Amino acid sequence: MSEVSTLGAVKRVLLGRPIPSRLAHHERLTKTTGLAVLSSDPLSSVAYATEEILRTLILAGTSALWLVTPIGAVIATLLVVVALSYRQTIHAYPGGGGAYIVAKENIGVSAGLIAGAALLIDYVLTVAVSVVAGVAALTSAFPFWREHRVAVSLAFVAVIMLGNLRGVRESGKLFAAPTYFFLAAMFTMLVVGAFRVLTGDVRPAPVGDLTGASGALTTFLVLRAFANGCTAMTGVEAISNGVPAFQPPEGKNAATTLTIMAALCVTLFTGTTLLAHAYQILPTEDETVVSQLAREVFGGRGFLYFSVQAGTMLILVLAANTAYQDFPRLASVMARDRFLPRQFMTQGDRLAFSNGIVLLSVFASILIVVFQGDTHSLIPLYMVGVFVSFTLSQAGMCLRWRRQREEGWLGHAWLNGTGAVLTGIVLVVVALTKFAEGAWLIVGLIPLLVLHFHSIKRHYDSVAAQLTLKDWSPEPPRHNTVIVPVSGVHKAVLRALGYARSLSPDVRAVYIETSTAATDEMRLDWDRWGQGIPLVIRHSPYRSLMEPLLDYVEEVDAESPDNFVTVMLPEFVPSRWWHHLLHNQRGLLIKAALLFKPNTVVISVPYHLKP
Amino acid sequence: MSEVSTLGAVKRVLLGRPIPSRLAHHERLTKTTGLAVLSSDPLSSVAYATEEILRTLILAGTSALWLVTPIGAVIATLLVVVALSYRQTIHAYPGGGGAYIVAKENIGVSAGLIAGAALLIDYVLTVAVSVVAGVAALTSAFPFWREHRVAVSLAFVAVIMLGNLRGVRESGKLFAAPTYFFLAAMFTMLVVGAFRVLTGDVRPAPVGDLTGASGALTTFLVLRAFANGCTAMTGVEAISNGVPAFQPPEGKNAATTLTIMAALCVTLFTGTTLLAHAYQILPTEDETVVSQLAREVFGGRGFLYFSVQAGTMLILVLAANTAYQDFPRLASVMARDRFLPRQFMTQGDRLAFSNGIVLLSVFASILIVVFQGDTHSLIPLYMVGVFVSFTLSQAGMCLRWRRQREEGWLGHAWLNGTGAVLTGIVLVVVALTKFAEGAWLIVGLIPLLVLHFHSIKRHYDSVAAQLTLKDWSPEPPRHNTVIVPVSGVHKAVLRALGYARSLSPDVRAVYIETSTAATDEMRLDWDRWGQGIPLVIRHSPYRSLMEPLLDYVEEVDAESPDNFVTVMLPEFVPSRWWHHLLHNQRGLLIKAALLFKPNTVVISVPYHLKP
Repeated sequence: MSEVSTLGAVKRVLLGRPIPSRLAHHERLTKTTGLAVLSSDPLSSVAYATEEILRTLILAGTSALWLVTPIGAVIATLLVVVALSYRQTIHAYPGGGGAYIVAKENIGVSAGLIAGAALLIDYVLTVAVSVVAGVAALTSAFPFWREHRVAVSLAFVAVIMLGNLRGVRESGKLFAAPTYFFLAAMFTMLVVGAFRVLTGDVRPAPVGDLTGASGALTTFLVLRAFANGCTAMTGVEAISNGVPAFQPPEGKNAATTLTIMAALCVTLFTGTTLLAHAYQILPTEDETVVSQLAREVFGGRGFLYFSVQAGTMLILVLAANTAYQDFPRLASVMARDRFLPRQFMTQGDRLAFSNGIVLLSVFASILIVVFQGDTHSLIPLYMVGVFVSFTLSQAGMCLRWRRQREEGWLGHAWLNGTGAVLTGIVLVVVALTKFAEGAWLIVGLIPLLVLHFHSIKRHYDSVAAQLTLKDWSPEPPRHNTVIVPVSGVHKAVLRALGYARSLSPDVRAVYIETSTAATDEMRLDWDRWGQGIPLVIRHSPYRSLMEPLLDYVEEVDAESPDNFVTVMLPEFVPSRWWHHLLHNQRGLLIKAALLFKPNTVVISVPYHLKP
Repeated sequence: MSEVSTLGAVKRVLLGRPIPSRLAHHERLTKTTGLAVLSSDPLSSVAYATEEILRTLILAGTSALWLVTPIGAVIATLLVVVALSYRQTIHAYPGGGGAYIVAKENIGVSAGLIAGAALLIDYVLTVAVSVVAGVAALTSAFPFWREHRVAVSLAFVAVIMLGNLRGVRESGKLFAAPTYFFLAAMFTMLVVGAFRVLTGDVRPAPVGDLTGASGALTTFLVLRAFANGCTAMTGVEAISNGVPAFQPPEGKNAATTLTIMAALCVTLFTGTTLLAHAYQILPTEDETVVSQLAREVFGGRGFLYFSVQAGTMLILVLAANTAYQDFPRLASVMARDRFLPRQFMTQGDRLAFSNGIVLLSVFASILIVVFQGDTHSLIPLYMVGVFVSFTLSQAGMCLRWRRQREEGWLGHAWLNGTGAVLTGIVLVVVALTKFAEGAWLIVGLIPLLVLHFHSIKRHYDSVAAQLTLKDWSPEPPRHNTVIVPVSGVHKAVLRALGYARSLSPDVRAVYIETSTAATDEMRLDWDRWGQGIPLVIRHSPYRSLMEPLLDYVEEVDAESPDNFVTVMLPEFVPSRWWHHLLHNQRGLLIKAALLFKPNTVVISVPYHLKP
């Protein structure tokens, strides 16, 4: 018991004291904390979205880099449309309108499951990509850490996991400061950068005057650059999924937060992209684009440069937190619908969905290790899931308006329909241009997950059908024969027999004979100590103790098949773990052999050994 | 059950049918099979003993190689003395006189345990060294296999293990042919080789006329060469340990076999050593000395050369078998004395001590992998254990004669005393000259093992004292309260309740309340289905199901501390393994929490789910 309490104490220190259920409602997000907790994902993606566009365009030479501006403009427009579209979802689903629920209710169960699979994958990738990109911000400022980036990333995942296991409101507090620090640092950079360009301090790069083209500027390349830039849009759905986590009025608070978030996103992404072009930033392996930009804008690695890097790192690592709100919540909703194991519905003693949180951390850590902490390798996997859920969610909303035909439904339907069509087109572009780089993995994984959801549901349905009491009638009391295998007579055996006698008047001891001399001795002992319990002796020609015992159990069962048979094993519980090795573990074998036999139960009666 | 029978079928194919206990006596060794089974170790050591001497002497240059002849002569003399000395042990201990028994009975328990530890280590090394040297014979003939020598060695260990799990007599049959084939091949080589030297076909190397000395010929070097050559003596004790495995009259058969073995050993070792010198063989990395010698004697790689290599490989790989006779038998004897886990006493259904056989194979395989299948790295570890047991065994015999003072005791005591002193001197030489090369490991391991033997014995003695019935008196029948935790009402719960009612009139269902709405529903269900069993409701403010349950168990226990409390858990047994993941595994936690609580037993009542 003392080990249990030690573990408990460690848990208390790491996770805090248990929270009673009646306080559940107090753990809600304000607009300020909600923006920090749920918006860090889309806000932080400006840290890598511009860079991913540039990395693709540079393949066609520096002369292609001017395209970053129009591509950025298209993405910003898309972002506005999707945000407006999701704003409608919040009002229609004040109880939380994730893509899973919207698609399931308005299109069909399979569409819901596809969206669910896409989202779960998306959340895992959000954690992996954000943490890895955050560590890239760190290693841009301090190159020493570059070779340890996998270990540092895993440490960040562990810290975020613990924060979330503590519970949702404390996460909000914990994450608000870095989010606003990031916003302050980025806007300072944008303002100073723009001021220097506008005052002629920095001469913007003229369109197309750089040389060194090494590849053709094909349509495919432009589409790939666009697809990569769409990472800026990931996480827009976080707020609409998280409506119930807001303080009441939930819908209104969530909608306002979403609007603020979209405005900030568009401003940051557009600003960074324009400045990167103006300052002629080229992507490199060792330093991020934002780091180069901050260095150029602030004229070196001073206080303001390090503020931008620190802010970027913090918000990216914390962006992973968005997924820690949504993954466990979606998993619990899908578990309630019986498409995922019911353990995801269990709230820990800090009111967090602990199993979902831990599982998300494990999967993200695996991705970080497999992809060696490299952002650019993870990005191609990222966006298929995101855009599948965007498309299904908005298509679902469009169908919903058409079906319900409330006042003004046509405008709503048009807005969501436009969103669905646009994100659907992006989905096709992303899937095609990034298929070979890793998107195939996600395209293949989603249907596999959907099949698995169905088979989990089938199992639970089958269990429910087997457990139903519809045609059940009370059974008459049944007889129970208790069989105690004995290999000699000592206190542990007599104790097991005493326990057996407290349960049934029909107790039988079974002795397996391997030598007649030992049997004779056993008979004498039994006469003295057996207390009148019948001793059954079975011969074992091959010295196996199992087979004769199992044969005897069969026999007793055959005497009256409706009754219970209980096999009771005396079991030593040593006080030191290695002493287990000094005793036979036959009990486990007997349990395994009888596990599937109906009406038969195996009991271990512990006998506690002193050291 | 079908998986159990499949495993059983595989076991039957690999190991053969079970052998009834009454046939035990038929599994005995004749002189012919006994020589093959128990003498392959000492006989086969000629395959590397000469080489180990040469490898050390060459460090002082080729001019030192003539010393192989006098060193060989000393070792041969020692071998004769030790063999004669052990012959006396056989007659004094017809029941099997291993160093463990002889030292324990005549010197003291600690001496016996030191000898036991030394022997167990020795047997593991016998397997490793013999198999690795056998594979070296193979790779001398077929260099392709050299890079796969670790895998080949492990495969040989596996084959020998299976052979021994089949049982002892079949091992004799299996191993007789290769042993006699080896003897025939070696004697052919010795006769042909000697004939060619004597007829002047080959001119023997003159003493000391070779040049190229690269190190000093110190006394230490000569002692090291001698110590290495003493590997020829390993395994001499095998026959005296194995007396009871012989057909009756056991002692006489064993003694005769020992004499034949010693004569063969001395002849082979002396012959090989003389010829190696005459043919000016130098040790190399890639080819064994015996292989080079056979090539020179037979003038190339013909049929006779390959016969010598095949014979050497087979007898070496089979020499490992000696240890497979002795390790499990010694372990079973020490387990009977409670110095080793009792599982070593269990004979499998083919009458072999299966646990000892498997453990020996595992340890030997670890050595082979760690030392990368290299004979020369293993040899320094080998001999400390051998000579510790030689010395203790003969010292024990010497004391025995002195104490018993039978007719002719003085001569017997002198012979064993001489053996003890000589092997004691060799032990010191071996330990000192090879300490740095690895002998320190064994010198340190032996006392650790002895301490461990004592602590095992202490545990068994303590258990026996706790289990004794000396002051036990029959207990009055005790009441048993059965607690069934329920989370709802369904067939599995009702089945567990039915089982509980078949065992005790005092059954109580416990429901842990996490929300009052669910509790109200539960109460209604219970009124309908509860069959009059009392329903205890406990509130859980932190949603934990464990703590309120454990509290209730404490309460029931406090009602009457002498009575039994049984916690009965309905447990789903799914038909597919992965379905386990879809159900809570709370039962394990409850079992762990209550394992150390006296008078409390936890029972799982299985409910079998269909797919």
